[in-house]
Amino acid sequence: MSAPSTAVIGAGISGLTTSKMLSDYGVPYTCFEMSDRVGGNWAFGNPNGRSSAYRSLHIDTSKHQLSFKDFPMPESYPDFPHHTQIKDYLDGYTDAFGLREKIEFGNEVRHARRMPGGGWELDLADGGTRRFEFLVVANGHHWDPRVPQFPGEFTGEAMHSHHYIDPRTPLDFAGKRILVVGIGNSAADIAVELSSKTLQTEVTLSTRSSAWIVPKYIAGRPADKYYRTVPYVPLSWQRKLAQWGQPLLSGRPELYGLPSPNHKFFEAHPTQSVELPLRLGSGDITPKPDVARFDGRTVHFVDGSSTEIDIAVYATGYNITFPFFDPDFLSAPDNHISLYKRIFAPGLPDLAFAGFAQATPTLFPFVECQARVIAAYAVGRYALPPDDEMKRVIAADQQKFTGHMLDRPRHTQQLDYFAYEHDIRTHELPAGTARAGGGTR
Amino acid sequence: MSAPSTAVIGAGISGLTTSKMLSDYGVPYTCFEMSDRVGGNWAFGNPNGRSSAYRSLHIDTSKHQLSFKDFPMPESYPDFPHHTQIKDYLDGYTDAFGLREKIEFGNEVRHARRMPGGGWELDLADGGTRRFEFLVVANGHHWDPRVPQFPGEFTGEAMHSHHYIDPRTPLDFAGKRILVVGIGNSAADIAVELSSKTLQTEVTLSTRSSAWIVPKYIAGRPADKYYRTVPYVPLSWQRKLAQWGQPLLSGRPELYGLPSPNHKFFEAHPTQSVELPLRLGSGDITPKPDVARFDGRTVHFVDGSSTEIDIAVYATGYNITFPFFDPDFLSAPDNHISLYKRIFAPGLPDLAFAGFAQATPTLFPFVECQARVIAAYAVGRYALPPDDEMKRVIAADQQKFTGHMLDRPRHTQQLDYFAYEHDIRTHELPAGTARAGGGTR
Repeated sequence: MSAPSTAVIGAGISGLTTSKMLSDYGVPYTCFEMSDRVGGNWAFGNPNGRSSAYRSLHIDTSKHQLSFKDFPMPESYPDFPHHTQIKDYLDGYTDAFGLREKIEFGNEVRHARRMPGGGWELDLADGGTRRFEFLVVANGHHWDPRVPQFPGEFTGEAMHSHHYIDPRTPLDFAGKRILVVGIGNSAADIAVELSSKTLQTEVTLSTRSSAWIVPKYIAGRPADKYYRTVPYVPLSWQRKLAQWGQPLLSGRPELYGLPSPNHKFFEAHPTQSVELPLRLGSGDITPKPDVARFDGRTVHFVDGSSTEIDIAVYATGYNITFPFFDPDFLSAPDNHISLYKRIFAPGLPDLAFAGFAQATPTLFPFVECQARVIAAYAVGRYALPPDDEMKRVIAADQQKFTGHMLDRPRHTQQLDYFAYEHDIRTHELPAGTARAGGGTR
Repeated sequence: MSAPSTAVIGAGISGLTTSKMLSDYGVPYTCFEMSDRVGGNWAFGNPNGRSSAYRSLHIDTSKHQLSFKDFPMPESYPDFPHHTQIKDYLDGYTDAFGLREKIEFGNEVRHARRMPGGGWELDLADGGTRRFEFLVVANGHHWDPRVPQFPGEFTGEAMHSHHYIDPRTPLDFAGKRILVVGIGNSAADIAVELSSKTLQTEVTLSTRSSAWIVPKYIAGRPADKYYRTVPYVPLSWQRKLAQWGQPLLSGRPELYGLPSPNHKFFEAHPTQSVELPLRLGSGDITPKPDVARFDGRTVHFVDGSSTEIDIAVYATGYNITFPFFDPDFLSAPDNHISLYKRIFAPGLPDLAFAGFAQATPTLFPFVECQARVIAAYAVGRYALPPDDEMKRVIAADQQKFTGHMLDRPRHTQQLDYFAYEHDIRTHELPAGTARAGGGTR
């Protein structure tokens, strides 16, 4: 059978790995990238405005977990590479597999219409309209800032962590009274960076859910070298085990003055920071519960306390947004989107999504695993089950991966990579091959 | 018996605690402080030039261990107070016990001469000469920078960590290639601060001895809450136990790329830093062994590697210096000074030293303990043994506290506070009281 003409939206890690697999399987494809470079979120200062990287950002996953299976990271890399090294690595990946020539840089997909009989019509930034039989959406989910709405009026400056670069950019934070809202990795990193006594700031950290803080290193080795769920033991048991071991790692958040978490350890994504507990324990960062309301420069918290601030930084996550789809056609309200294996939307067999999960420990091998399914599907070596069966599995998977979590936009996408990869490799790909009539041998 | 007229040199933590105890015992005394303020090392930007505090400095010992026994730290203080809080605490101590009126600010002791029949003649900054029967030296041991001598010529800028304030002061470190020499707490703090990617620096850390790195927090509680030697078990056994437990805490330094330590865990003062391993593992700090030689802007290391640098920061410790004594009379070559209980010099019964040890976990309760002995001695309630006995005990104590350590200037002063305090309280003070004819009851 002949492979379908395929369009890939985006040349970040999801678009690149998908392109590489499509290329491996001989699928004719074009990758559309609105920017002038690959790397998406990892291209610091990306002119497309979609990189959230700040100057000091290091990836929170060690290179041992991060490498694509088919393109190991250089031995010379440190355990936790800097964003510039990740970008270099992605450029190296792009060139090693000859992906660059299939990328149309600066040619954004402005609108994607599904045609009545199937297939896609894309309106492009270059003014043209082109048709493809198969569409892969890989436009990322860490670029459209989610900003909380609090009562009252705040008369200081407000910004989202997405736009944070360093203590002088885009605002001069030195000497300022700063509120950081959120407790994810970005909130922790930014609060730590801005609370350096060398900047003579006052930093307050407000969190609604609180968080369990875990270190990046345990006993001198990257913490994620110890972390690996095993497919043969129920995830719920493994979470119990982690809950038991947590106090040995980092202690309860209340010890640092954070609010009591409204969830158990592992019921929400833990925050990885060795520095946050230290800064809290040194009095450099003042912990507070959720914001109740603003009044001019005053922020009131739900515990009745208040403080004066000059700048609010919202490190409150991102929306999943598909600007090229009509919202009536497809959107992800509150970041909920029902996808079979996080890839396929029931009823839309000519569409696939790549990279739409918050995979633990990291997105990199996860998107590579998804790309394998997408390429096999494109050439007909993997087939989907009927729509009803897909919907049943979607619900079961959602329960498996996020049933233990808080129902918050931030957590809808949570996924354990090891369990996912094991399912795809040992169950889903063989089953899909059989469905395609290819047998599993 | 009447108490001797007493002079105290210095109003840092050692001079203040001594003054307070002398006051408690009704000893007539005068405290001479060259600066216009109390606090010595803890008075950030002290005009006497003797504070090593940098802007971001937090004490490395938790407030639970740090408090003077008779003046608890405020409940509101964080676990690891900032230097401004330590200074406030020392001001509070000074005022609570009415010490300020006995301090002659701005009146440096320029020269101290022992008179032939005993007693002291002091030449003062105000031009006067005054006599005292008893002299307490409390001028500190963290103010006279020790700078290593390496072969070759370095044409960049060099400075000692003593003068470091923040990334813009006294030099603008932004964008520079920086070498930090040393691996103590100051070296770790400064290397971490200067390696922030927001400064766009390149930081190399060179160490001769390497070091074991321990965290400031263990499982959410200040690490020193777990640390307490007990007097009933030989210290050598307790060191063995600590050596056994070390890998659980922080792993071997080689895991972060540091050279292999030339000593076992606890054989030299460990370095307390949660951030240094992270920065090494993130590639922000490049670890190197000892410097072999300089050549212009190039520094060559003993492993044959080399790198270009603009600024060298020597975080290489301090000399013990007594500028008011004739060197022939008394000095501390390579920081060796033989003192009975780190206080009394055999043959000089009208002289005492306060604060001349590197006490673990901290100097604060240690100097308070020494002050108790000094004041009891001043009023004759505690007497010294004969000189020969003192010399025998000095040698035995040196073996007990530092026999397991490297013979380096940095380690001559090492002392376990808990063992020291237990010895003073249960053995030395009762024995000295008996020698003074007072009985031990």
